[in-house]
Amino acid sequence: MSHAPEGKPGTVRPGGRTARTRTDVLAATRAELTDTGLARMTVEKVAARAGVAKTTVYARWRDISGLIVDLLSELTVRTVPVPDTGSLEEDLRQLARSLLELFRSTEDLVMFEAIFATALHDREAREALSAFYAFRLDASAALVDRAAARGEVPPGTDRLEVIRTLSSAFYYRRFISGEPVTERDADRAAAVAAHSARAGLLVVPPA
Amino acid sequence: MSHAPEGKPGTVRPGGRTARTRTDVLAATRAELTDTGLARMTVEKVAARAGVAKTTVYARWRDISGLIVDLLSELTVRTVPVPDTGSLEEDLRQLARSLLELFRSTEDLVMFEAIFATALHDREAREALSAFYAFRLDASAALVDRAAARGEVPPGTDRLEVIRTLSSAFYYRRFISGEPVTERDADRAAAVAAHSARAGLLVVPPA
Repeated sequence: MSHAPEGKPGTVRPGGRTARTRTDVLAATRAELTDTGLARMTVEKVAARAGVAKTTVYARWRDISGLIVDLLSELTVRTVPVPDTGSLEEDLRQLARSLLELFRSTEDLVMFEAIFATALHDREAREALSAFYAFRLDASAALVDRAAARGEVPPGTDRLEVIRTLSSAFYYRRFISGEPVTERDADRAAAVAAHSARAGLLVVPPA
Repeated sequence: MSHAPEGKPGTVRPGGRTARTRTDVLAATRAELTDTGLARMTVEKVAARAGVAKTTVYARWRDISGLIVDLLSELTVRTVPVPDTGSLEEDLRQLARSLLELFRSTEDLVMFEAIFATALHDREAREALSAFYAFRLDASAALVDRAAARGEVPPGTDRLEVIRTLSSAFYYRRFISGEPVTERDADRAAAVAAHSARAGLLVVPPA
């Protein structure tokens, strides 16, 4: 181990050894991703780079997919917080603006591009990315739950679909059509998603 | 040349030699894309496979980007026609359903995936893809022009943004979050795009 345990032996306090191990392992994951590429990464190399035992990585993250999901989750929890302003449209606007900022960071953008590219032909990468988006959509949809509780959207609104409607405009421009994405596009995506939700276009259909 | 010219020497009638050359060259482009991959394709190999002079390919398509743009354009003009039903929402629904079918064809899906993956790290592929989407968005937006002429959408509606709003839901699910896309999603995307356009959310802002 490259870090001395903090506190008494056998205890792990918040922000202590466990947190530091995660920080080191995710930093190593990111560095390996950049240097080696997702398709050729191994748990062994990540563990060596982080200076932790590979059994620790296997026990906690299981495999490369687990590492990728945790890396993207940690990054987005930190950089794309889920707003709570008391207004659905304002929450969506702030979420869209954070997403815009994330993809303006060249380093983060390159990392996402590398993962998207691999996911287009590699099943394990595809599953990691799907697991990450399932996590993110669910986390972000908390703002839709709050809007529903305030009566801003009709009963039966599909909480995930509101977030998909917001996000998809971005991803389409950034990664598919290759067009620039601006603050105006972020605000417009928020207006479209909020309006569609309020109008009942995003309700779950009867089974 | 693998094909004898049709009609009198020096004449080219519709559906004749020029059309056949295009068919052969685009089929060869597609085959090379599958076998060799976009990053390693050359005009020479495409020409050889098509049985045409490489000077013919250079003169008509200029480079690999030109071939990719023409391949995708030809495919989508054929398989994703621009509807004209007299109703914006119905036109959008039919367009969405055709797009759904296109991405259900495994062979076409794999081809798009290969191009998307390359465009994520290769500038020439990125430019080809952007040129293709500029062409497609413009062609599809003819249905928005007709809706505007009927007074279905407010003056100043951004014709391309209506099509982007429709398409992005698909691309997000199919290529980013990795979720299934169904007829219901297609119809919902059409409702969201039509509703947003009618509500004036997709107008071009004042300069």
